[in-house]
Amino acid sequence: MTHLFFEGSEKKLELSLVPGSPSLRSLGYEFWSQAVHIAKAEILSQISNEHCDAYLLSESSLFVWDQRCLMLTCGNTTLVDAAIWLAQQLGSENIAFLSYQRKNEYQLQLQPSCPKTDLSRLREAMPMKAYQLGYLDSHHHFVCHLDKAFTPPPRDITCELLMYHVQGPNADYLRSEGQSIEQVRQLLKLDLLFPGFTIDDYLFEPYGYSMNALRGEHYATIHVTPEQHSSYVSLETNLNLGSTHAYIVKQLLSILQPSSWDTLGFNCQPFSPLGAEQIEVSKGNVDLSCGYQVDFRHYQHLQRRVQPVIQL
Amino acid sequence: MTHLFFEGSEKKLELSLVPGSPSLRSLGYEFWSQAVHIAKAEILSQISNEHCDAYLLSESSLFVWDQRCLMLTCGNTTLVDAAIWLAQQLGSENIAFLSYQRKNEYQLQLQPSCPKTDLSRLREAMPMKAYQLGYLDSHHHFVCHLDKAFTPPPRDITCELLMYHVQGPNADYLRSEGQSIEQVRQLLKLDLLFPGFTIDDYLFEPYGYSMNALRGEHYATIHVTPEQHSSYVSLETNLNLGSTHAYIVKQLLSILQPSSWDTLGFNCQPFSPLGAEQIEVSKGNVDLSCGYQVDFRHYQHLQRRVQPVIQL
Repeated sequence: MTHLFFEGSEKKLELSLVPGSPSLRSLGYEFWSQAVHIAKAEILSQISNEHCDAYLLSESSLFVWDQRCLMLTCGNTTLVDAAIWLAQQLGSENIAFLSYQRKNEYQLQLQPSCPKTDLSRLREAMPMKAYQLGYLDSHHHFVCHLDKAFTPPPRDITCELLMYHVQGPNADYLRSEGQSIEQVRQLLKLDLLFPGFTIDDYLFEPYGYSMNALRGEHYATIHVTPEQHSSYVSLETNLNLGSTHAYIVKQLLSILQPSSWDTLGFNCQPFSPLGAEQIEVSKGNVDLSCGYQVDFRHYQHLQRRVQPVIQL
Repeated sequence: MTHLFFEGSEKKLELSLVPGSPSLRSLGYEFWSQAVHIAKAEILSQISNEHCDAYLLSESSLFVWDQRCLMLTCGNTTLVDAAIWLAQQLGSENIAFLSYQRKNEYQLQLQPSCPKTDLSRLREAMPMKAYQLGYLDSHHHFVCHLDKAFTPPPRDITCELLMYHVQGPNADYLRSEGQSIEQVRQLLKLDLLFPGFTIDDYLFEPYGYSMNALRGEHYATIHVTPEQHSSYVSLETNLNLGSTHAYIVKQLLSILQPSSWDTLGFNCQPFSPLGAEQIEVSKGNVDLSCGYQVDFRHYQHLQRRVQPVIQL
C-alpha cells in the first residue's frame, strides 16, 4: 500500500537590514518572485497593508517588511539557496541579522539537503553560529544565525506552534476530498482567533491548506499538511501567545487534537499550558548572541497515541 | 564544534531453512565471512557451543545455528546486500522464513540506503510483506518478512531492549578513554545477568563495546555505542525477559539510565515494567503472517531529560 506523503515541516529564513537601508518592500514583486523561485517555490497570491507585503507560496509563505523579511518553505524546497542569493543581492554589509532554521523533517532522507550541508554552504557565504535544540531521535530543531551582534526591536517576539498527528473529526475533514475553503476557515475558527485580520488563504488539491493573515504590525500564518501518517499543522505569529493571545494555542490544540506538538519561542515566555494528560518530553533554550533567546519544547499527549502500525 | 558520531542502531536479518536442509553451520567460516564482508563488516572473533556458532563482528554480531541464522549490523553496513546474497546462495526454495528489520537511525540521511529502498530491493528478489511500527517523527521500527506461511518452533521468542541517551556514572565511564574490558563487564554485571554463559566481547577504540554470550540454546548480545549526543545500547536475547528473566531489563535500565528506550518482542509478552517516572509514549503490535506476533513499545523517562542544546 502506498501512503500519500508530503513534508509539511518548514525551513525558515529571517533577515533584517541595518537601519537606513533601502526598503525591502521597494524591491518589488519581480525581485521577491525570483527569491521564491530560487527556493523552488512559486508565489500564489499576495495581500498587503501599511507595514507588510504577505505572499502565499506554493510551499508556505513570505512576509516582507521595509527592514525585514521572513520566508517559510516546506516540501522539497531549497530555502538555503534563497538565503545565499538574498545575502549576495542585499550585500552582507547591509544585513544586520540573518537566521536560518529547520524543524526536524518526517523524512530527512528525501530532502534535497540536510541541515549540516545547509550550514556548510551558509558558512561559505558568511560567519554563522549554529545550534541543535532537542535530540536527533525525537523532535528537534536546527537554528543558525549570522555571527554578528544585533539588538532586536522592542516587542519583537515570534511564536511557533507545530502540531503533529492531528486527530478527530476536524483532522478527518481536513484530509477528506471535496472540502470548501469556507468550512476550513470555520473549522479553524479564524474569525475568533484572528479578529480584524486580513486573510489570504488557499486550499490545495487533493487537500492541504495555507493561510496568511495581517493586521497592523501583526502577522500570522497557518499551514496544514493533513496526510494520515505524517500530518503536520504549523502556526507562526508575532502575537504574544504567552500572554494576551494564549487562547489561540488552547483553541488550536482543541480543534486539531495533535498527538504531539512543539513550541518555539523567540524572546517570549513558554506558551503551551500543560493539562493533566499532556507531558513536556524535552526542552532546550539558548541565548543567541544575535539578541534572541530561543525556547524549544516538545510535548506529548498521553491519551492520543493511536496504534501506529502501517503496512508498507 | 564537531561531535563524534557513530550510528549504533542495528539492521537485522533472520533466516530459517526448511526442515531437512543441510546445516547452515556446515557452510563454514569462509562462507559466513563472505556474507559478513558483503554487508561491509568483518568477523573479529568466534565462540561456539553444541547449538550455535556466534561471531563478533566489527559492526555487531552473527549467530549461526543448523537451521537458522541471525545477523545484526550497525554503522553504515549494507545488511540488505547480505540478505539478498544469502537468499541466492541458499536457494529460495530452501528458505522457510526470512525477516529484515531496521530500527530508526539517529541519522538516516547518512545511511547507504533507507528502509524503502531496501524493501524495493528485497521485493525484486522475493515476495515480502512490510510494516512500520511507531511514527516516523519518533522512535519507530521497520520490519519486513518473506510472504510465506511459517510455524515458528515452540518457545521461539526474541526480546530486544534498545536504550537511548544513556546517562549517569556508568554511561560516563563507557564514553571515557582508557577503559578496561574487565571493568566494562563488571559495570554491566555480566556475571549476574548471564550466569553460566560463555562470553566473547570486544572493546573498541576510543570506546564502544560488543558482547556475544551463549549458554545451551540461549544467546544474548549487547552492543554499546556511548557517544555523548547519540548514545545507544542494545540487548537482544532469546531469554524470556517478560517472565523468568525480567531482572535483566530492570538491571540494565538501572545501570545505564537511558532517557528513552524501546522494546521489541517476538512471540513474548511486553517486558519493560513501568515505574512512576516512566511513560509508554507509543506502542504498536501486529500479527505477522509468518507466525510471529511483534510488539513494539517506546518508553520515556520523565526525570532524565537533559537540556538538549548542542552547538554545531
